[in-house]
Amino acid sequence: MLLVFGSAKLLAEVFERLKQPGIVGEILAGVIIGPSVLGWLSPTDFLNALANLGAMFLLFRVGLDVKSSELIKVGGIATVVATLGVICPFILGWGIMRLWGEPQIGSIFVGAAMVATSVGITAQVLAAKGLLHHNSSKIILAAAVIDDVQGLLVLAVVSSLAKGKLNLVELGLTALLAVGFTVIVAKWGTATMRRVVPHMHQRLRVGESQFVMALVLLFALSVLAVWIGVAAIVGAFLAGMALAESVEPRVRDLAHGVTELLLPFFLAGIGLYVNLRAFKNTSLLTLALVILLAALLSKFVGCSLGALSLGKADAVRIGVGMMPRGEVGMVVAQIGLTIGAIEQNVYSVVVFMAVATTIVAPPLLNLAFAGVKPTAPEEVFRLV
Amino acid sequence: MLLVFGSAKLLAEVFERLKQPGIVGEILAGVIIGPSVLGWLSPTDFLNALANLGAMFLLFRVGLDVKSSELIKVGGIATVVATLGVICPFILGWGIMRLWGEPQIGSIFVGAAMVATSVGITAQVLAAKGLLHHNSSKIILAAAVIDDVQGLLVLAVVSSLAKGKLNLVELGLTALLAVGFTVIVAKWGTATMRRVVPHMHQRLRVGESQFVMALVLLFALSVLAVWIGVAAIVGAFLAGMALAESVEPRVRDLAHGVTELLLPFFLAGIGLYVNLRAFKNTSLLTLALVILLAALLSKFVGCSLGALSLGKADAVRIGVGMMPRGEVGMVVAQIGLTIGAIEQNVYSVVVFMAVATTIVAPPLLNLAFAGVKPTAPEEVFRLV
Repeated sequence: MLLVFGSAKLLAEVFERLKQPGIVGEILAGVIIGPSVLGWLSPTDFLNALANLGAMFLLFRVGLDVKSSELIKVGGIATVVATLGVICPFILGWGIMRLWGEPQIGSIFVGAAMVATSVGITAQVLAAKGLLHHNSSKIILAAAVIDDVQGLLVLAVVSSLAKGKLNLVELGLTALLAVGFTVIVAKWGTATMRRVVPHMHQRLRVGESQFVMALVLLFALSVLAVWIGVAAIVGAFLAGMALAESVEPRVRDLAHGVTELLLPFFLAGIGLYVNLRAFKNTSLLTLALVILLAALLSKFVGCSLGALSLGKADAVRIGVGMMPRGEVGMVVAQIGLTIGAIEQNVYSVVVFMAVATTIVAPPLLNLAFAGVKPTAPEEVFRLV
Repeated sequence: MLLVFGSAKLLAEVFERLKQPGIVGEILAGVIIGPSVLGWLSPTDFLNALANLGAMFLLFRVGLDVKSSELIKVGGIATVVATLGVICPFILGWGIMRLWGEPQIGSIFVGAAMVATSVGITAQVLAAKGLLHHNSSKIILAAAVIDDVQGLLVLAVVSSLAKGKLNLVELGLTALLAVGFTVIVAKWGTATMRRVVPHMHQRLRVGESQFVMALVLLFALSVLAVWIGVAAIVGAFLAGMALAESVEPRVRDLAHGVTELLLPFFLAGIGLYVNLRAFKNTSLLTLALVILLAALLSKFVGCSLGALSLGKADAVRIGVGMMPRGEVGMVVAQIGLTIGAIEQNVYSVVVFMAVATTIVAPPLLNLAFAGVKPTAPEEVFRLV
C-alpha cells in the first residue's frame, strides 16, 4: 500500500511541477511499478477492491456537488451526446478490426469496449479545477451516466451474440431495469432524501449519523446498481446526487478524506493493467496506435456533434471530456477474453487504448477549459 | 461491505438507544452475522485487510490528538503499569491452564495471549467522550504502547521456546529494535515533523499536500513497525502523534472520514472471529468463563496496582482501560495454533476471552469515567 500510494503521489508531484495534471502522473506510476516496467506489483484482488472503492467514492463525492435537477435539465442534449458517442466509436472500432482481419465476433467486442466512457477521470479533473458547475461539465456527467446504461445494453447484446443466442425478453428486462433505476433515483432521490435525512438525523443516536446514512445509501445503491447490471460507480454517483441538497458540509469533508486515500489506488490500478511488453511486435503496436486514435477521434466527433447546438467551445469541451475509457473498456475486454471472443493480443490492444485515452484526456481537458473561470471558487479549495 | 457496515451501524444505534456504548453493538453485529449465529459471513482476507486498516486509522486519528511530550511525561508510571499488566495476566493464565491439565507449552501460549492490551477499543471510547486529554487516558495510551512492545518480546520468547531453541542474540536484537523505534519516534518525531511539514507544505504542489504527507508517514511507520515486529497500529499511533503539533485541523477531518468508514469493519471483524458453537461442551464453556474472569481481573489488578500512586479513581480507570485484548490476543492464539502449541478448543477459548474483554470494557469504562467532564469539549463534537 505504501508503494502504490507513495509512488502515485510522487509522480503526481512531479507532474504538477511540470504543469501537467497530477492525475496522469498517478496512472503512470501504476504503469511504472506494474509489469510493464519495474514489475514490482501486479493487480491483486485486494488492490482491485481498493481501486473499485476509490472509484465509487470519487463518483460519490462528485455526485454530492451536483444537483439532480440541473442534470435532468440537460438530459435531452446529454442523451444525444451519449448516443452519438456510443455509435461512432462502436462502428469505427468494429470497422478497423474487420479491416485488420479479426473475425466478426472479436471485432464487435473491440467496438463494444470502445463505447463506454469512464467519467471518473474527467470528473476528477473538472472537480479539481472547480468547474463541476460549468454547463458542459453537467452535460458530460449526465451523458456519462446515460452512456454507461447504453454501454451495458451494448455489452449485453454482444455477450448474447457471442454465446450464439439473442434473448430479447431478457435484454428488454435489463434495459427496463437499468433505465428505470437511473431515472427513478435521479428524479426522486433528491426529494426523498431531503425529507428523510433531517428526519433520520434527529432520531439517530449513533455518532456522525449523516455520514453513516450517506455511506449506507452509497453501498446500498452501488449493490443495487451492480445487481441490475450497471456499474457500481453509477450507483455511487446517484447516491451522492440524491444527498447533494440535504447533507451538511461535514459529510463532504469526511467523504473527501476517504476519496483522497483511495483515489491513488484507482488511478495507479488502471496503470497496473497495461503491459507494454506485449507490444514487441510492430504490427500489433501499429494496431494499438490506430485503435487509440480511432477511440479518441470517434468519441470526440460523436459527442461534439451531439453538442454542436451549444456552440463550438462547449462542443469541444464535451467531446474531450467524454474521451477517457478507463476501467469500463477493460471490463468489456476482460469478458471478451474470458468467453474466448478475443485473443490475448487484441486484449492488450484494448487495455492500451483504455489506459492511453485516460492519460491523454486530462491535458486536453486543461486546454479545452483554458481561460474558463471556476464557477464556485470555494470548491477549488475544498476539492483540490 | 453493505452487510458489515449496515449491520454494525444498526446495532450501534440500538445500543446507543439502550444507553450502552455503540462500539459494543458493532462488535456484537460481527458475532451475529458471523459463524456463531447467522453464519452469513466468515472472515475473508479482504475484510481482514479493511479491519487492519480501520485499526490503523483509528490509532492514527487518536495519535493526532495526543502530544508526545505529554506521553513521555507519564512514561515512568506507564512503564510500571504496563509491566505489572503484563506479568499478572501471564502468570494467572499460565497457572489456570496448568491446573486445567494443559501441557507446559500450551499454557505458556495462553498466558502470552492474555498479555497484550488492544488499545483501539479504549481509545475509541475515550475519544468519543472527549476524554483523551485526561491524565489517566494519557497513561493508558502510553502503557498500551509499552505493553505492545513487551507483548512482542513475550511472544518472541514463547515462540522460540515452542520451537525448542532460545536464540538470545536474536531476542536481544528484536528488543533493541522495538524499543529503539518506539522511543526515537516518540521522542524526536514531533520536533522533526514540526520542521518538515511546513517546509514540505510550501514546496509541494500536489493537492491536499498535508493529508498526503500524513498518509505517507502513516504507511511508512506502519510498515517499519511490522518489519521490526511491533504491531502496525503502534506505527500508526506514533505517526499520528508525530504529526499532532504540525498539521492543520483539516487533516484530522479527512482522517476522521476514513476512520468512520473503516472502523465498523475492525469492530465487526473482531466479532466475526468468535464461534460460540464451539462451546457446546460445558467444561470448555467453564474454562472459557474462568479464563475470561482471570483476564479481566489480572489486568485490572496489575494495572491498577501500577497506578495506585495516582489515587484510587485514576487507578480504577487505568485498570479498566487496559482490559480489552481484542485482535492482539487473537494473533498470539493464531500463532500458537499454527505451530501446534495449542489445540482448536483452547484456541476458541482464547478468542472468546479476547472478544469478551473488548465487549465488557466499554460499559465499565463509562462507569469508571462517570462524572468526569471532557477536557476539550470541542473534541467531543469532532470525534463522536
